Amino acid sequence: MSETGLCDLAVVGLGVMGGNLARNFASRGLRVAGYQRTVEHAHALAAAHPEAHLRVAASLEELVGMLERPRRIVLMVNAGPAVDSVLDQLDPLLEDGDIVVDGGNSLYTDTDRRVARAEARPWRFVGMGVSGGAEGALLGPSIMPGGDRYAWERLRPPLEAIAARSPSGVCVTYCGRGSAGHFVKMVHNGIEYGDMQLIAEVASLMREGMGWPWGQVADTFAGWNRGELESYLIEITADILRAPDPQNPGALLIDAILDRAGQKGTGKWTVVAAAEHGVPIPTIAAAVDARLLSAAKDLRERAEAALRPNRGVVQGVSPDDLRDALYASKIASYTQGFALLQAASEARDYGANLAEIARIWTGGCIIRAVFLERIRASFAQAERPELLVLAPDFVADVARRLPGWRRVVAAAAAAGHPIPGLSASLAWFDTLTRSRGSASLIQAQRDYFGSHTYERVDAPGVFVHTEWPRSSQ
Amino acid sequence: MSETGLCDLAVVGLGVMGGNLARNFASRGLRVAGYQRTVEHAHALAAAHPEAHLRVAASLEELVGMLERPRRIVLMVNAGPAVDSVLDQLDPLLEDGDIVVDGGNSLYTDTDRRVARAEARPWRFVGMGVSGGAEGALLGPSIMPGGDRYAWERLRPPLEAIAARSPSGVCVTYCGRGSAGHFVKMVHNGIEYGDMQLIAEVASLMREGMGWPWGQVADTFAGWNRGELESYLIEITADILRAPDPQNPGALLIDAILDRAGQKGTGKWTVVAAAEHGVPIPTIAAAVDARLLSAAKDLRERAEAALRPNRGVVQGVSPDDLRDALYASKIASYTQGFALLQAASEARDYGANLAEIARIWTGGCIIRAVFLERIRASFAQAERPELLVLAPDFVADVARRLPGWRRVVAAAAAAGHPIPGLSASLAWFDTLTRSRGSASLIQAQRDYFGSHTYERVDAPGVFVHTEWPRSSQ
Repeated sequence: MSETGLCDLAVVGLGVMGGNLARNFASRGLRVAGYQRTVEHAHALAAAHPEAHLRVAASLEELVGMLERPRRIVLMVNAGPAVDSVLDQLDPLLEDGDIVVDGGNSLYTDTDRRVARAEARPWRFVGMGVSGGAEGALLGPSIMPGGDRYAWERLRPPLEAIAARSPSGVCVTYCGRGSAGHFVKMVHNGIEYGDMQLIAEVASLMREGMGWPWGQVADTFAGWNRGELESYLIEITADILRAPDPQNPGALLIDAILDRAGQKGTGKWTVVAAAEHGVPIPTIAAAVDARLLSAAKDLRERAEAALRPNRGVVQGVSPDDLRDALYASKIASYTQGFALLQAASEARDYGANLAEIARIWTGGCIIRAVFLERIRASFAQAERPELLVLAPDFVADVARRLPGWRRVVAAAAAAGHPIPGLSASLAWFDTLTRSRGSASLIQAQRDYFGSHTYERVDAPGVFVHTEWPRSSQ
Repeated sequence: MSETGLCDLAVVGLGVMGGNLARNFASRGLRVAGYQRTVEHAHALAAAHPEAHLRVAASLEELVGMLERPRRIVLMVNAGPAVDSVLDQLDPLLEDGDIVVDGGNSLYTDTDRRVARAEARPWRFVGMGVSGGAEGALLGPSIMPGGDRYAWERLRPPLEAIAARSPSGVCVTYCGRGSAGHFVKMVHNGIEYGDMQLIAEVASLMREGMGWPWGQVADTFAGWNRGELESYLIEITADILRAPDPQNPGALLIDAILDRAGQKGTGKWTVVAAAEHGVPIPTIAAAVDARLLSAAKDLRERAEAALRPNRGVVQGVSPDDLRDALYASKIASYTQGFALLQAASEARDYGANLAEIARIWTGGCIIRAVFLERIRASFAQAERPELLVLAPDFVADVARRLPGWRRVVAAAAAAGHPIPGLSASLAWFDTLTRSRGSASLIQAQRDYFGSHTYERVDAPGVFVHTEWPRSSQ
């Protein structure tokens, strides 16, 4: 990079994610300008990483002047008002064809609003999800851009340069129109909540329900990581369960960690979006609910003391049953998540490609797994399955796992061990696969008390009302 | 009523609910003016029910002129833009202290907006839930007003005149500030979804899982209606399951009804509101999800054909177990619903009184039940329980029902019969009553991949980060 030349792109917001993303761009030979409101922090970052040749701007005005046109500016600021504030400041500085990318975890409806704003202005806007944590941002994240297609073509080379690579290709693709990028990232996070919850339930069931030492739990997860469950989250679970407690020789760290889990809102947003789009995602919702209950530690202590749930030993469950329950529930969870993506893509005209979305999740991001390559292949079939679980590959998979799945859910329920994710997944599966469901009674009740009418099985589409005989009259 | 005198109040919108409410007011000696955009319909209603002496206005202007001041105008128009449209038209016609009541199923955030609008105007606004269906509106509904307190005092006499009466009193109370009335009505409907789903699951389990004829199912529900489960929905379930199919001699109507259930949005709103307020309501959410899946009848047929869930006979479950599972799940569902009300009341400054809300649901509305009098009594204790299920009365109740509840959920999961509501309720209970939960692993994972930090059990409140040993490096 020459000190007098113009930069290829800019990163605004140089926190952990933004700083690492800037360094990642630089490591690929791109000339990067950076800006941060606290300029000293930006200078400190540049000094700490001289190899990145980061050019620090003292103002957004100066930053804009440092860039080749059309300009490419990636915002890595906190989701929310900070994004609008930077857009307000950039707006008068930008010219025809300049591109602003919001790389934060923005709520998709905020992105819709910003897309509409940009459409009335000369500059172009891209909402982009980035997954992989700090390490991913530095070494290769999964990147989910959406919005302006022209802007995507201009962003494609630098994004492909920094994204993760997996056997399925480079982990970035155009996710679709409007707020598609942030919607896809939100669902990614929802699925991540589901995966983590299912793993936690199974690990806890082994430890508390079956009395295994943590070492055996860790070994089992490590073994699973060499099979169909191979994934980043399974791998790190084995690592975690073997970590010693530095403050307590001979003890394991897992036993010292408080069981109070935080969340940053994307899980909740996924639940709200699913409700708005009319798509059931009970596995993901159970994971969000479990985090909410985990946070209420004091309440749980009082509830256990008062209600004495009388937990026992989990009976008749083999390690293979546990693996099957985890894997089948994971299929349920991903089926729900992709169904939400599909419904949103139709309702919101994203034009999303589910196979491509599965592909860019095969590397770089938290949910990366060999499983996702199978999902990609299923959605890439000429005849796309109506639901993931109805893809021939997964139909066979679930059939094999169903008996073990049932045994685990039944045994845990009988013995009093909480498995909200596993049991919600199975209940979803059993509801989905029942052609004649129990809603005939609900329809009758609605007609009885509210004259809402119902359809007959022999005349669907015709709504009739019955004057029901009333025992009470 | 004299033809020249002024009316006590007006009803705008004379559909089934509005017309019946107007007739109910009239039956209590109140002089009622009515308006409907299609004036012929209003005249037809007045002609069909001469005993109501309904005075029909040809315009809102004329209607306003017919009323004693301060005027009381109850809107019974469709929730949504129609309410704003009528408010727009009424606004210039109203004077200081006049009262407009929105008696429809409005979304509470719309009510917030209208409350704010009214605060800047001379007239006063009340958002009011009305439950009980068409019959309730005519003979005595449960009424849930909230908003302007002065307006409530002026509305109290006519509302107390028309509301249902139960042994606990008259089924109307001031629900709280702002949009409290519509929020309370929304949660009422969410709970109603839960009740209906739980009943449908149990009835279906008896019929499909245990092979009972419908007559035995009906008799069992009729029996339960003489005990702790006594409620309107249990009563009508017994009626429904005995109703003959008029088109098929010897057959029962329940078998002719299509299992595709509709919904009007309040269930979905409850799920969204719970997510926004961070309150888990898995039983109610399962009911909403079940309706969504019920609507996808064709998909369920294809899913059953492809996935062959291999359902069997439910083993080892007694009728008492089923009753216990239903009752315990109902306690779970109501605990969740009231927790949502409590959280919303705090977050939104409603100042809601949970005992009073339980009381006004004891009569007139769809979920009326002896159970609600027990809830009222629990919340009326000097030391209000933190959660309904922690009230001493219910602690004892759940303890007695827990073994049967577990047996039903385990047996149904093992045999492949869908029980999303029953199992979500039990999983919620087991998660709530586990003082040491599985979220320590989730916290470790979050710290591993995202440096999100965690707390130690021996130092809560102190957030630490670990450099986790990585097997992969």
